[in-house]
Amino acid sequence: MPEYMTPFTTMINLTNGVIPNAVVVQKRYLKDMEGLFADSRAEDAEMINNPLLYEVHEATNNPMEEGQLRYSTTTIYPGKVGGEYYFTRGHYHEIGNRAELYMGLAGEGYLLLMTPDGEINVQHMTPGAMSYIPPFWAHRTINIGKENFVFFSCYPSDAGYDYESIVDKGFAQIVVEQDGKPTLLPNPKWTK
Amino acid sequence: MPEYMTPFTTMINLTNGVIPNAVVVQKRYLKDMEGLFADSRAEDAEMINNPLLYEVHEATNNPMEEGQLRYSTTTIYPGKVGGEYYFTRGHYHEIGNRAELYMGLAGEGYLLLMTPDGEINVQHMTPGAMSYIPPFWAHRTINIGKENFVFFSCYPSDAGYDYESIVDKGFAQIVVEQDGKPTLLPNPKWTK
Repeated sequence: MPEYMTPFTTMINLTNGVIPNAVVVQKRYLKDMEGLFADSRAEDAEMINNPLLYEVHEATNNPMEEGQLRYSTTTIYPGKVGGEYYFTRGHYHEIGNRAELYMGLAGEGYLLLMTPDGEINVQHMTPGAMSYIPPFWAHRTINIGKENFVFFSCYPSDAGYDYESIVDKGFAQIVVEQDGKPTLLPNPKWTK
Repeated sequence: MPEYMTPFTTMINLTNGVIPNAVVVQKRYLKDMEGLFADSRAEDAEMINNPLLYEVHEATNNPMEEGQLRYSTTTIYPGKVGGEYYFTRGHYHEIGNRAELYMGLAGEGYLLLMTPDGEINVQHMTPGAMSYIPPFWAHRTINIGKENFVFFSCYPSDAGYDYESIVDKGFAQIVVEQDGKPTLLPNPKWTK
């Protein structure tokens, strides 16, 4: 008789994204994001405080096998570095054709997406916004509000992460506060 | 340059599961479930009323391709047929190794699972319960409460549905109200 994986349930707080029994909690500080903000001088100045930018609560460590799913919540704290709103590092999937689904739970954010050709797309996320990351798009999330921006993610377990392409080249655009509003500008550091 | 699918956002009401721009709304009445309840006489007697048992709101019709995801909400209304709580038809995935994730949004339910060998597992779902359906398990949901039971689903787009195995053989157990409580009993109609 084959061995079947045992079903299980993990609780999530739907209003603040907390997963009390998360298997992994990753915290990302500014030091983990060195070189990613467009304004290098502002980034250097903030490094002494080394603020916590965001954390990810993984609900499971389901096997990285085709057909399985993983799911997590991300909380991005409010804040800016040189006018640029706090964001997640962002990545492509290692297996490029793997999609991902986000669901806004609290606060307000942008989902910034980019094709390998450098085409940019932005989705505005509020609580209840289910934003779809189609295959092949790099994705980064950005807190454009004054509260925590919290969202839920679900993705194929075998998707994998390619962070290096983003560390090396960045996204083609950045999101900066101008006249009190989030504004998309060309990223001076970006190379195609 | 390759064609990339365009990212998009669909809104969901996180408290009642309504997706105002659902691409498909499926309504399942008792007539659609003929022969699935254990008490055939009670089922026949209720058929004249033909109550609405549940509805599914599909958020997207994303391509049925490997790597893509689909997501939906299901509302099961409160009610019973011969003591057996209203349930969804239930299915295996056509591609057996495709998992699925449920997230409780409102009300209270059971997620009833079964392996091809007839092993049964039950997950209790309340708002915020993320219940994982591992590869190869048939799955059915049951409203064991007095309010609507609402949950969100996310699954690989290419999973497909095998309803026939359940229509032919049912689940090995049924969920019946006894002494005011949901109780698992052997299904008299079940054949292995």
